[in-house]
Amino acid sequence: MTAPGAGASGEDSLIARYFKPLATDPGAFGLTDDAAILKALGEDIVVTTDAIVEGVHFLADDPPHTIARKALRVNLSDLAAKGATPAGFVLTLALRGVDESWLSAFAGGLSADAAKFDCPLLGGDTVSTPGPLMVSITAFGRVPVGKMVHRSGARPGDHVVVTGTIGDSALGLNILRNGVVATALASDSAARETLVGRYRVPEPRSALALAVRAHTRAAMDVSDGLAGDLAKLCAASGVSAVIDVPAIPLSRAASAALAARAVSMSEMMSGGDDYELLCAIPQDALEAFMLATQAAGVAAIPIGTIIAGVSAPKFLDEEGRELLLPRASYSHF
Amino acid sequence: MTAPGAGASGEDSLIARYFKPLATDPGAFGLTDDAAILKALGEDIVVTTDAIVEGVHFLADDPPHTIARKALRVNLSDLAAKGATPAGFVLTLALRGVDESWLSAFAGGLSADAAKFDCPLLGGDTVSTPGPLMVSITAFGRVPVGKMVHRSGARPGDHVVVTGTIGDSALGLNILRNGVVATALASDSAARETLVGRYRVPEPRSALALAVRAHTRAAMDVSDGLAGDLAKLCAASGVSAVIDVPAIPLSRAASAALAARAVSMSEMMSGGDDYELLCAIPQDALEAFMLATQAAGVAAIPIGTIIAGVSAPKFLDEEGRELLLPRASYSHF
Repeated sequence: MTAPGAGASGEDSLIARYFKPLATDPGAFGLTDDAAILKALGEDIVVTTDAIVEGVHFLADDPPHTIARKALRVNLSDLAAKGATPAGFVLTLALRGVDESWLSAFAGGLSADAAKFDCPLLGGDTVSTPGPLMVSITAFGRVPVGKMVHRSGARPGDHVVVTGTIGDSALGLNILRNGVVATALASDSAARETLVGRYRVPEPRSALALAVRAHTRAAMDVSDGLAGDLAKLCAASGVSAVIDVPAIPLSRAASAALAARAVSMSEMMSGGDDYELLCAIPQDALEAFMLATQAAGVAAIPIGTIIAGVSAPKFLDEEGRELLLPRASYSHF
Repeated sequence: MTAPGAGASGEDSLIARYFKPLATDPGAFGLTDDAAILKALGEDIVVTTDAIVEGVHFLADDPPHTIARKALRVNLSDLAAKGATPAGFVLTLALRGVDESWLSAFAGGLSADAAKFDCPLLGGDTVSTPGPLMVSITAFGRVPVGKMVHRSGARPGDHVVVTGTIGDSALGLNILRNGVVATALASDSAARETLVGRYRVPEPRSALALAVRAHTRAAMDVSDGLAGDLAKLCAASGVSAVIDVPAIPLSRAASAALAARAVSMSEMMSGGDDYELLCAIPQDALEAFMLATQAAGVAAIPIGTIIAGVSAPKFLDEEGRELLLPRASYSHF
């Protein structure tokens, strides 16, 4: 991704107009070179990459600024879960053609979030495609050497803690597709808007990166559904877990959809796109972690306990019966 | 990109089977986590990203192993041009579905080149798409602090040097599309194979990374056509250039196509996908650079001179007349 010179092409002009303003880091060289420099500053560089595809992770008529923000935020969510502070990102944008008003809005959204999360654009590539729009981002963060938080550190006795609320995003997608949730919440436009907003613009828990690093033994972000992602964390740690389903935090809007029987609890636990943090926190660090979340203004709540064993995590309802989950997590294939 | 645990999905199994063997760097954590660690080792991290799209950068019926290798090699080419030693890469793969034999061949090609160029897989993302296949790679290299080679360092009097041969890849694409070059070289299957091979599997000049760092004042890789890319290098450096067109190195196959008038010299200079190095080298460093290329077994040759001025580079034919280029470089839009 390079800005124009004497050999400026359409691609180069586009980049200069819309993306150069986002390349605020000196290592981006104003997008005038073939590569960027990322300074490690004596720390470890944490690298994560996530792509979003039209029709799969966003809808063709989603506002361009929310598409841009979602593309960056799903990566920022991974950095936060690893305890890393954002350092920058590179962008690959596959477009069917040039729609200047679309691009302008896209770059505007990306710019706002790059500034908000202090994560500058370092470079990228624009390519043409006859197919769906795709936005692929590789994001970088920094942690003190050896301090990245893994999936694999959970130990029996740890509390299982999640941030925010679970299931909203899957409900938002259902509403955008005019599904049963749209019907159930037909008279509650505020609830519908909240849920759609959660699907389009997830909230990466970047404010908790330091708390994750300081107080958790294992963490990951919930992107493919709480149930499946917890199973992955447990498998990586060689443990199991028992979850108190009524403790799983729900938004008012999601509770309304659940009360109207438009969705089941197990669907919300396997819907994906939550981008909340899932953490295993030792008993003696729980209070400090909860205080840090309060200081950051982010809701967080214990929902269960890590136990010894290698069986799949158990999800118990209010009467202690195990909930059977037909599909634990979202898979692309 | 994560390997499977108790919550293994189809996506996770795929990754484990085909891509985990490529994740040989300890910082990849065997693809079992949400992010990788890239160690800077006291150097600067050079970051570059390039995507290839089916129907644009490769053809639907190209062998999967060449698609994989091209995706990695176009990025390795950028690292070499910046004087950087490969450190690793992350991969985003957008697939229409799972074709195990295709994936196996793809992973095999990628694995071979990751080993050949000492550039291990650090992580990635697989997504489903209803559209064309797309492979997006972000590659990392290392250079001593402050030593990345830029486009902007060329000075009047520097030699303009290119590696390898120019134009082959554009001719190879023409052959794959059954264009005029296929007809002109109908009786020369070796030439056709050479040109198609150059389109499908470019040769990144990684062996010259240290020589580029030691001896050039400016460099970039030729990806969008020699003429346009030279114009970009000159613009970034605030200089111009005069090129001796007969000195531009051509393969035997390209010379045959040219002699048969299946292609013009200006088309070969603007065709793109060469992935050769374009360097500005001061007079007193030329001999050392040429010796280094010989030691590495890579052809390189001076084709002109950097001059003062801001006009577009001039391309002179054997009689000193300026060649007019209808289209200086490839642009996606």
